[in-house]
Amino acid sequence: MNEGFIALHVGAGHHSMEKKHAYKTLCKKSCQKVTIMLKDGCSAVEAVSAAVVSLENSLLTNAGRGSNLSLSRKVECDASIMDGRTLNFGAVGALSDYMNPVLVAKELLLHQNNENLSLHRISPCVLVGEGASQWARSRGLKSIKSDLLVSENALHTYNKYKRKVEEAENDPRKFLQREPANNETLHSEAKEMEKNPCISSEAWFPGDESLKLDTVGAVGMDCCGNVASAVSSGGIVLKHPGRLGQAALYGCGSWAQNSLSSTEPAVAVTTSGNGEHLIKTMFARTCAETLISNTDGVTGLHYVFHTKFLESPFLIHTSEKLAGVLAMKFDPVSNSVEVLWAHNTATMVLGYMSTHVTKAVTMFSTLPSSVDPGHKPLIQGSLLKLHNKIT
Amino acid sequence: MNEGFIALHVGAGHHSMEKKHAYKTLCKKSCQKVTIMLKDGCSAVEAVSAAVVSLENSLLTNAGRGSNLSLSRKVECDASIMDGRTLNFGAVGALSDYMNPVLVAKELLLHQNNENLSLHRISPCVLVGEGASQWARSRGLKSIKSDLLVSENALHTYNKYKRKVEEAENDPRKFLQREPANNETLHSEAKEMEKNPCISSEAWFPGDESLKLDTVGAVGMDCCGNVASAVSSGGIVLKHPGRLGQAALYGCGSWAQNSLSSTEPAVAVTTSGNGEHLIKTMFARTCAETLISNTDGVTGLHYVFHTKFLESPFLIHTSEKLAGVLAMKFDPVSNSVEVLWAHNTATMVLGYMSTHVTKAVTMFSTLPSSVDPGHKPLIQGSLLKLHNKIT
Repeated sequence: MNEGFIALHVGAGHHSMEKKHAYKTLCKKSCQKVTIMLKDGCSAVEAVSAAVVSLENSLLTNAGRGSNLSLSRKVECDASIMDGRTLNFGAVGALSDYMNPVLVAKELLLHQNNENLSLHRISPCVLVGEGASQWARSRGLKSIKSDLLVSENALHTYNKYKRKVEEAENDPRKFLQREPANNETLHSEAKEMEKNPCISSEAWFPGDESLKLDTVGAVGMDCCGNVASAVSSGGIVLKHPGRLGQAALYGCGSWAQNSLSSTEPAVAVTTSGNGEHLIKTMFARTCAETLISNTDGVTGLHYVFHTKFLESPFLIHTSEKLAGVLAMKFDPVSNSVEVLWAHNTATMVLGYMSTHVTKAVTMFSTLPSSVDPGHKPLIQGSLLKLHNKIT
Repeated sequence: MNEGFIALHVGAGHHSMEKKHAYKTLCKKSCQKVTIMLKDGCSAVEAVSAAVVSLENSLLTNAGRGSNLSLSRKVECDASIMDGRTLNFGAVGALSDYMNPVLVAKELLLHQNNENLSLHRISPCVLVGEGASQWARSRGLKSIKSDLLVSENALHTYNKYKRKVEEAENDPRKFLQREPANNETLHSEAKEMEKNPCISSEAWFPGDESLKLDTVGAVGMDCCGNVASAVSSGGIVLKHPGRLGQAALYGCGSWAQNSLSSTEPAVAVTTSGNGEHLIKTMFARTCAETLISNTDGVTGLHYVFHTKFLESPFLIHTSEKLAGVLAMKFDPVSNSVEVLWAHNTATMVLGYMSTHVTKAVTMFSTLPSSVDPGHKPLIQGSLLKLHNKIT
C-alpha cells in the first residue's frame, strides 16, 4: 500500500485565540479519521469529501450547520469538489437544506463519470438553489429542514450585524472608520444606503475580520497517487440570498490535477477568503498552474500570491484583498509531498497527516504582529518524503 | 469620434434553413441598432448588453422569452457580462422572471464599480435563483410573471421531448441510436433510468442538434477603444432546474480584456455550445489568452479549438464536444479589428458591423457536408481596418 495524504483547513480569517485548542482538535480528529479511510483504500475524492464533511459537521466552522446567515436569515451553502484523476468537477450553490453540501457536489462529480455511456447524456456539473436540492433528493441524499442548519451562534451574529445595518441606515457615518470620507462622499453614500439598505450592508464590517472567515477545504492524495480537492462555505454573514462565492465556481475554490507523466507533479489546491476576489483571479486554478511549473512550492506560492492576487489587474480597483490557500504538490520523481499554505488574513488554521504517521500536524498560523491583514502574506510549507514508491 | 464595433450571434447549433432569413434579419437589425448607440457614444458594456437584449427579445433564440423549458416546465436563464476596461464581471443563473437576464448581469457588473467606496463593500458578482430576482427588483429592474417567458414553440418542444422521456422510461432502447450497446449495458441503463427517470433524460436527444442551441452572445468595442462581452442562454431543453451553464460562469461564457499597453491587443470572446464542456475548458478565457498571444487570429483560434477543446485533457472522457466561439481582437498597432468565429456545430448564425459602415455583414455559417458536427471546426475571420486612430 502506497502512502496517502490529507491536508485540511478551517478557513483563512480571524480565528479567536480562545478557541485555538478547539480548532486544532477539530483539524486533528478530521485528519485522523480520513487517514484511517485512506489506509482502507478509499479514493482521494472520498478522502477530501470526508474531511470536509467532518468540518461541515462542526459548529465551529462557517460551513454546513452553523454557517453564517444570509440577509434573509437563512443558511445558504456553496461547495465544490474536483477529481484530479478524471478532472471532473461538481459544485452546488445557494443550497439551504443539506447538512453536507460537499456530498451533493460529490454526487454531481461522480454522476459525470457516466458520461461515456451510450446515452450521450451530459451530466450537469453545477446546480444551484432548490433545483440542486431536488436533484440531490432524487439521488437518494436526504435533505433536512432549513431551520435546523441555523445555530445559536450564527443567529446571535446575525442579530448583532442586522442591528448595525439598521443603525447604518439611520447614520452611515458610524460605518466609515477606515477611510474617513469627505462630506460629499458621506452624503452620496447615505443616499445610496437609504435607497438600497439591503445591498449596501452586504459584506462589510470594518475591523471585524472574523466575519470574513469564509471557507473550509481539503486537499488529498489516495494510495494510488490520485489527488482531489474540496471546499465548502456558508459565505459571508448577511450576504445577499443567491450570492455564489468561490466555493461554487469552477477554478476558483478548488482545483486538482493528477500527474500527467512520470515526471510531472500532481497538485491540489483549495482557497479561502474574499469570495469575489478569489473568483476574479480564479485563484485555485491559478495557484495550481504556478505550482506545476515551479520546482519549489513556497517560491511558486510566493510568486502567485503577489503577482496573481495582490497585484492582479483583475483586482486593481480593490482596496482590501484577503486570501488563504492550502495546497499540496506531489513530486513523482522525489516521491515526496509538499504541503503548502499561505494567507494574508490574520490567521489560518489547518492540519495535515499522511497514512504512515500516527499524529496529525496542526497549525494555528498567525500573521506577524507587524503585518496588517490584506497585505503581505505569510507563506509556509513542509516537505514529506513518502515511504512507498507510487507507480 | 473613433470607430466602434459590434459582433453578435444567435447560437452555435443546428439552425433551421427555413428560418435562415429570419435569423439573418435579426442579426442585421440588432447590429444596426447597436451601431447607432455606439455612434452616440455608448460604452462597450452598453453596446453588448443592448445587442444581447435584442436577441433575448426575439422568440427565435434560446435566450430570454422563448427559451427552452426546464424539466419543471419553466424558463430558467443564465447570463453574464464582462467589461474589458474594469475587468469586472456580473452573472446571473437560474433566473426565472426577467425578460432580459443580461440586464440583471449588467446591473451586477456596474454595481461593482462602487467597490472602491470607503464603505469597503464587496459587491456580489454572481447571483442565482430567487435571490437574483430579489436583488434585481431592489435595484429597480422590473420582473415579470415567469409564465410570460414561456413561448408556444418552447412548450411544443417541451411536450414533444417530455413524451420521449416517458417512452424512454418504458423502453430505453429507443434512445440508443448512435452506439448500439450490448445487452448488459442496455440492462444497466434501463435500470438507471427506472431509478432516476428525470436525471437520465436530462440533456440528450441523439440526432437532434437543434436542442443544443445553447446561447446567444455579443462582443464589442466602443469609440474609446474599450471592449466588452456578453452572453445569455435558456440552457438545454429539459435541463434539471438549477443547472448552470457556461453563460453563468466566470471565464466560460464571456471574456473581455482591454489593451494593457499601446502595443497589446484588446480581446473579447463569447462562447456557445455544450455548457458543461465550455465550463470544464473555461473556453472563453482560454480563447482570449490564446488570441492575445497569437499574431494571427484565425491561426490562434484554430490552435485553441483543437488543443484546448477537442483534445483537452478536461474533456478526455467526452465523446461529443460541441462549441462555437465569436471573438474580436483589436490591434492598436495596425488600428484594425479582426472578427473571428469558429464552430463545430452544424451551423452558427452571426452578424457584425462597425460604426463607419451602413450595412451589417450577416453569416449563416454551415459546416461542409463532408464534416460531421462534433469534430473539425469551421474557422473564419475578417479583418476590418478602422478609420480613426484610437489613442
